[in-house]
Amino acid sequence: MSVLVAISGRDNTKLIARLTELLPNETIEQWPSCENPNAVEFVLAWNAPNDLWQQLPNLKAVSSFGAGVDSINMSLLHERVDVVRIVDEQLADDMAEYVLTHVLAQKLRLQEYFVKQSQSNWKPKRAYKYKHVGILGFGELGKACADKLLINGFTLSAWSKTAKKSGQVKLYTESQGLEEMLPQIDFLVCLLPLTEATKGIINAQLLAKLPKHACVINVARGEHVIEPDLLSALDSDNLRSATLDVFTEEPLPNSHPFWQHPKVTITPHCAAISDLNSVTEQIADNVNRLNSGLELNNRVNRTKGY
Amino acid sequence: MSVLVAISGRDNTKLIARLTELLPNETIEQWPSCENPNAVEFVLAWNAPNDLWQQLPNLKAVSSFGAGVDSINMSLLHERVDVVRIVDEQLADDMAEYVLTHVLAQKLRLQEYFVKQSQSNWKPKRAYKYKHVGILGFGELGKACADKLLINGFTLSAWSKTAKKSGQVKLYTESQGLEEMLPQIDFLVCLLPLTEATKGIINAQLLAKLPKHACVINVARGEHVIEPDLLSALDSDNLRSATLDVFTEEPLPNSHPFWQHPKVTITPHCAAISDLNSVTEQIADNVNRLNSGLELNNRVNRTKGY
Ligand SMILES: NC(=O)c1ccc[n+]([C@@H]2O[C@H](COP(=O)([O-])OP(=O)(O)OC[C@H]3O[C@@H](n4cnc5c(N)ncnc54)[C@H](OP(=O)(O)O)[C@@H]3O)[C@@H](O)[C@H]2O)c1
Ligand SMILES: NC(=O)c1ccc[n+]([C@@H]2O[C@H](COP(=O)([O-])OP(=O)(O)OC[C@H]3O[C@@H](n4cnc5c(N)ncnc54)[C@H](OP(=O)(O)O)[C@@H]3O)[C@@H](O)[C@H]2O)c1
Repeated sequence: MSVLVAISGRDNTKLIARLTELLPNETIEQWPSCENPNAVEFVLAWNAPNDLWQQLPNLKAVSSFGAGVDSINMSLLHERVDVVRIVDEQLADDMAEYVLTHVLAQKLRLQEYFVKQSQSNWKPKRAYKYKHVGILGFGELGKACADKLLINGFTLSAWSKTAKKSGQVKLYTESQGLEEMLPQIDFLVCLLPLTEATKGIINAQLLAKLPKHACVINVARGEHVIEPDLLSALDSDNLRSATLDVFTEEPLPNSHPFWQHPKVTITPHCAAISDLNSVTEQIADNVNRLNSGLELNNRVNRTKGY
Repeated sequence: MSVLVAISGRDNTKLIARLTELLPNETIEQWPSCENPNAVEFVLAWNAPNDLWQQLPNLKAVSSFGAGVDSINMSLLHERVDVVRIVDEQLADDMAEYVLTHVLAQKLRLQEYFVKQSQSNWKPKRAYKYKHVGILGFGELGKACADKLLINGFTLSAWSKTAKKSGQVKLYTESQGLEEMLPQIDFLVCLLPLTEATKGIINAQLLAKLPKHACVINVARGEHVIEPDLLSALDSDNLRSATLDVFTEEPLPNSHPFWQHPKVTITPHCAAISDLNSVTEQIADNVNRLNSGLELNNRVNRTKGY
């Protein structure tokens, strides 16, 4: 069989070299070069072109190059095709450290102080006492963040699709649960997958339910946020601040109002960057499993879309 | 007896009201008003004028208004006078949270990203992997910081005056110990008291022993740092960054080069702000102990100077 890498907007030289090392018996090609489309059974994809899939009649599995599968247009894949994603302990640790760092940064007013520093302005203020973090999504990454925040003395709530139990985290489901959770929390962390159901979830209606002192931290996908709604909430003092790692358009366009907004902290989609070695090992492992007829690891539920 | 409050540069109205509530039977006055200097046995001091002490012939105890006693010129006090300070769990928690936040901020490049944000510059970089924190001083605050960093996966070393044991923190003493510790650490946190022995300790010689990627975090006193030496180390790329909460002159003068330095993070002496209720309770308690002839709490060693 052959493995096709269809990842756009990135230099894949090292990735292909590493995969070739790990899978010495497979043909590994990088789209658009593909000698025999009939031989392609496994695609590693990130923003692959929509017309790729119909050219691969024997496709069996598509692996995302990251934790999210929203860059794969599943509606274009034959239903027998498995979709898998990356689940990585280091990625979860990095995300948890990012979320802890930025919750603390908002609690201790780091951005306010950076703005004041740029104005040579000395103005001590007490750190906020707020401690209640609510997480949208309680999957691999949401759970890792909750654990990290709990050991640092925060109180946790989380919202997921299916009902769950967790000792120290107060869990909510359904839109009613979300409505109940929002007014109680001081920090809202978005760690949902991007699906039809979650797109645009951080909108005016949701933001109006948060306390005015709340901070929004979006580390999932830019499309979870209705950007003009977020800006209005900030500008009308109905939200204290926003920390954003992901955006509808990335890189964030030069003229975007987020850049120079005094209440917005921007990081350039760096919250949790996959480690090449770990990612390639997981991919090679799934290619080997496919060859051996074993069930693939980290399959997503195609009906749910994540 | 009477209690005198000699705290300059601050509105003490609430403080005096609270002390009056807690000590209904004592006369509480605010310097320079002092009806009967002979009756003053207890002074609450912060940058009190040098000529105050000789006017109080029956002085028995001086309490600092904070954790440090460097604002009290002990050489001017009769040797029978006790000097006490504030030791407060909330203060230690706040300091530990500040230090964790700023170590993480340096690890995750927050200041670099703030500078890039101000330039609308999108440039993702991986967080640093550095994990070894060295603390100068392993007293009330140093220990609280070490504990907080340990639960977050950092490796800890600390330097103190007297030899100690601690399960997970590697401890050093003497100048030889300091020389051994410095090259191994990625973050240097200063939590020493300001004494003759520690003044100017963060100088060119010390900085030269740190790795070039190291970050200095000073939360003790501005005079611990030789400011031109710190600037040279930063400007010659022999130090990655500095986070400073305390300065030789506070408020930091408008023209100071730290303000606009791209490698310096400034906070306005807000790392751990004493809580008025907790501080006044400790002071009232010591006044009562003095009245009852009991040993005072949180006495400093006047020979050591801290
Ligand atoms: N910024 C970055 O650098 C970065 C890096 C990696 C990943 N990410 C983003 O993080 C996302 C989450 O990753 P993950 O590995 O934690 O995903 P995951 O394990 O699939 O967890 C997703 C969570 O969201 C919940 N959820 C899904 N749809 C929902 C809905 N309609 N209503 C309520 N809850 C819903 C799920 O509920 P159930 O538990 O009930 O199924 C689950 O708890 C990824 O999809 C990706 O977009 C960002
Ligand atoms: N930025 C802020 O907001 C803020 C707030 C509160 C306090 N502070 C500062 O933090 C300082 C530390 O407070 P703390 O309560 O932790 O003090 P502490 O309990 O007295 O601890 C001081 C530590 O420094 C060590 N030390 C003293 N002199 C030394 C020397 N010459 N060489 C090596 N080690 C030495 C001591 O060693 P031994 O253990 O061997 O005695 C001790 O471990 C205060 O003095 C104050 O200046 C700043």
